[in-house]
Amino acid sequence: MVAEIICVGTELLLGDILNSNAQFLAQQLAGLGIPHYYQTVVGDNPDRIKKVIDIALGRSQLLLFTGGLGPTPDDLTVETIADFFGSPLRERPEIIEDIERKFAQRGRVMSPSNRKQALIPEGADILPNSSGSAPGIIWQNPRDGVTIMTFPGVPAEMHRMWEEIAVPYLKSHGWCQETIYSRTLRFWGIPESALAEKVNDFFNLTNPTVAPYANHGEVKLRISARAPSESAAQELILPVEEELRKIAGLDCYGADGDSLASVVGQLLLNTGASLSVAESCTGGGLGAMLTSISGSSNYFYGGVISYDNRVKVGLLGVQEADLMEFGAVSSIVAKQMAVGVRSRLETTFGLSITGIAGPGGGSEDKPVGLVYIGLAGPSEEVESFEYRFGNIRDRHWIRNLSSCTALDQLRRKLLNS
Amino acid sequence: MVAEIICVGTELLLGDILNSNAQFLAQQLAGLGIPHYYQTVVGDNPDRIKKVIDIALGRSQLLLFTGGLGPTPDDLTVETIADFFGSPLRERPEIIEDIERKFAQRGRVMSPSNRKQALIPEGADILPNSSGSAPGIIWQNPRDGVTIMTFPGVPAEMHRMWEEIAVPYLKSHGWCQETIYSRTLRFWGIPESALAEKVNDFFNLTNPTVAPYANHGEVKLRISARAPSESAAQELILPVEEELRKIAGLDCYGADGDSLASVVGQLLLNTGASLSVAESCTGGGLGAMLTSISGSSNYFYGGVISYDNRVKVGLLGVQEADLMEFGAVSSIVAKQMAVGVRSRLETTFGLSITGIAGPGGGSEDKPVGLVYIGLAGPSEEVESFEYRFGNIRDRHWIRNLSSCTALDQLRRKLLNS
Repeated sequence: MVAEIICVGTELLLGDILNSNAQFLAQQLAGLGIPHYYQTVVGDNPDRIKKVIDIALGRSQLLLFTGGLGPTPDDLTVETIADFFGSPLRERPEIIEDIERKFAQRGRVMSPSNRKQALIPEGADILPNSSGSAPGIIWQNPRDGVTIMTFPGVPAEMHRMWEEIAVPYLKSHGWCQETIYSRTLRFWGIPESALAEKVNDFFNLTNPTVAPYANHGEVKLRISARAPSESAAQELILPVEEELRKIAGLDCYGADGDSLASVVGQLLLNTGASLSVAESCTGGGLGAMLTSISGSSNYFYGGVISYDNRVKVGLLGVQEADLMEFGAVSSIVAKQMAVGVRSRLETTFGLSITGIAGPGGGSEDKPVGLVYIGLAGPSEEVESFEYRFGNIRDRHWIRNLSSCTALDQLRRKLLNS
Repeated sequence: MVAEIICVGTELLLGDILNSNAQFLAQQLAGLGIPHYYQTVVGDNPDRIKKVIDIALGRSQLLLFTGGLGPTPDDLTVETIADFFGSPLRERPEIIEDIERKFAQRGRVMSPSNRKQALIPEGADILPNSSGSAPGIIWQNPRDGVTIMTFPGVPAEMHRMWEEIAVPYLKSHGWCQETIYSRTLRFWGIPESALAEKVNDFFNLTNPTVAPYANHGEVKLRISARAPSESAAQELILPVEEELRKIAGLDCYGADGDSLASVVGQLLLNTGASLSVAESCTGGGLGAMLTSISGSSNYFYGGVISYDNRVKVGLLGVQEADLMEFGAVSSIVAKQMAVGVRSRLETTFGLSITGIAGPGGGSEDKPVGLVYIGLAGPSEEVESFEYRFGNIRDRHWIRNLSSCTALDQLRRKLLNS
C-alpha cells in the first residue's frame, strides 16, 4: 500500500510559496513506515487535478491532498475530487455550526462564501479542522482499496489535523506495518563539520542510522531506527544517543522538541532562579524567545529594549562616558546593561545583547555581525562574550544567532554553577 | 509550449530537505512567461523516473530536471534519461578536464567516481556548471519538439547554471513570448472571506488575474498580468490596483515587500514621530518586529518587557490598585502601560500589549486569546482596543496576531491624524 502527496495551488506553480506541506507529509509518512514514491504539484484547475488523480490511482492507494479548501472560487479541490468519482456534494450542517462558532469566538459573523466549505462528497467523512474554518475529508473506498484525505494549505492547520485525526486513522486501519522512529539530538556552539568529525563513525550505522543536519546556526543529529514497534525502535536508539551525548558533552543541549529557551527555562526553574534581559540589536527577540515557552512567567520577569542609547542610560544606568569612549557595541556596555537590568528588575540573572545587525552601521573596527553578550549573576563577577557573526548572512540571521547564543551562554553558566 | 519541473531525489521523498529548487524554477518560469502546470518529485529509481518522463512528455515540451547528477551510485538522472530515449552515453573529455581542474584548485585529486559525471547522452549538449563538479545537459529534440535540461540539486549551483546558460538559451530559442508580472496587495484587519466578497468581481478578470491568499492572519490579493514586457504588464495592473485600493480603503496597508512594521516605520519617519513599546504577553515580539526593519533606530527608541506585574508597576508606573481590581489583562492596565512607556522613554507614541496567550491562564470571563492593546499619543487622550483571538490557535499565533494588530492600530492612528 503506497501513499502519494498531491499539493494543489496555483501559488505553488508561481513559486509564491515554498511547498513545506510536502516536506511535512513526507517526513510523517517515513516516520509511519508508509512508502511513498511520488509527489505532484498542480494548479487550481479542475481538469488538470482530475488528470493528476487518474495518474495517482494507477500507482498509489492513499492520496493525500493539501490546498484548495478555502472559501474562495479558486478553492475547488474537494468538489473536483467528488466530480472525479461521480459523487454529489452534500452540505453538512455540523460544519456550518462549527464555522459559525469559530467566527463568533473572534466576534465575527460567518460570510456566505464559507458555506462552500461545508460541502462534502456523499460517502466521505469529515476530517475536522480544530484550528481553522476549512475542514478536510477522509474518503475510504471511493474506489476499492483507495483512501483519500484532504488538508488545507495552511501548514499549522494541516499539521494539527494530520496529528489529531489522520495518524490515528492510518494506524487503526493497518497502514503502518513497521515503524520508523527518530530522535533528534540538538547542538549549539559547535560547527556541523566539527561535530561530524567527532561522530564520523556513527554515519556508517545501518539501524539505527545517524544523519547530520544544520539550519539557523543549529546542528542536529537524527537517529532513526526501523522496528516493529516504537518501543523496540527506542531500544535501538537509546545506546547510540547515550554515546553521542557523551562525545558531544555540553554542546548537546537537548533533543526533539527542546529549544534553547525551553532548556534554559527548565534550568532556571530547577534552581529557583529568575531572569531579566536587556536588548539592543535584537530589539526584543531574546525576550520573545524566552516567552515563547508557556509558563515562562515563573522565571522570566521581563526586560528593557534599549534600542536607543538614551534608554541604555536612563533605564539601565549605562555610563554615558563609557558609551562615548567605547561605543554602544562594546564589552563594557554589554556588562553594564546586564548589571543594570538585573538590579532594576531584581532578578537572579541579567542577560544582555548589544551588536551591529546590519546591513548598515558597520565600520572597520566594528563590522556588521559584531555582537557582545553580557551576563550578570548573583555573584559580583560579570561576564561578557564577543562574537563576530560576519556579514555574509542577513540582519535576521545575525539577530537570531545573537539571541540563541545569549541563551546558550546562560545555559552553560547554569550547568557549570 | 509548456514546461514541467521534475525533481529527483529520495531525500525529498523522506522529507529530509525542502524542495526550494521547485520554487526557484517556478518563479523563474513565471517571470519568463513560460507556462508550467505540473511539478513532480520522484526518488532515485530508474523505473519510476522513466514513468515520470513518459507522463511528462504527454503534457509538456520543456522538461526541467533537478537532482541526481552527483558522483554516487544513486545519482542516475542523466543515464536514465539517456536510457529512456535509447541514446548511448559518451564520456566527454572536456568535462573530465574541468572537474580535475576544479579539484586541483582546492588541492585535491579527482576521485574515480567523478568520471561518471562526464557521461553525456549522444545528441545532448553540456550545460556547464561553473561552481560545482556536476554538469547538466541541454538536449534539444530527443523527441520532436521536446527540450530537456538537467541541473544539480545543490541550489547555488542550479541557480547559477539557470541564469548563466538556461535563461539565455530559452530566450534565444523562442520560449519567452511574454512575461508574467505580479503585484501583491497586503491587507490587515479584514478576514479573507469578507475581502473576497467585496472584490468578488475581480476574480473573474483574465488579464490581469486577481487571486486571494491568507496566512498568519494577513490577507493578500495577487494581481498578475501577462504582457510582452514588464512595463506593459504594469500598465495592465495599475488601474486594477487602484480600484482594489479604493474598495479596501484603510484595510490595504501595502504591497509586495511591505510589512506592517515597515509601513508604520515610514509613517513615523514622515511625521518625525518616535515610538516606544510596553509588552506583556508578546514578551518582546512587537519590538523585534519593529527592529526587523533596518534603520528603525530613527524612530524606535525601545521599550519595556513587563512580563511580571512588578515590572509593570516599577518601570511603567501601572497602579497596583488597578492591577488588583481589574487584573493585568484589562483595558485600564493596557492604557497605563502605554502612557508609562511613552513618558518614561519620552517618545511621541507609546504602544502596549497585555493579554492571555495561553494555553494556560485563561478563565471564564478572561479566556485565552483575550488581548488589550493600548495606544498613547501626543494628545491627552489614550486609546485601548480589546480583541478576542480565541483559543483555537496556538500561543505563537496569538502572540503574532497581537503584535501585528498593535502595529495596525498605530498605522490607522497615524493615517487618521
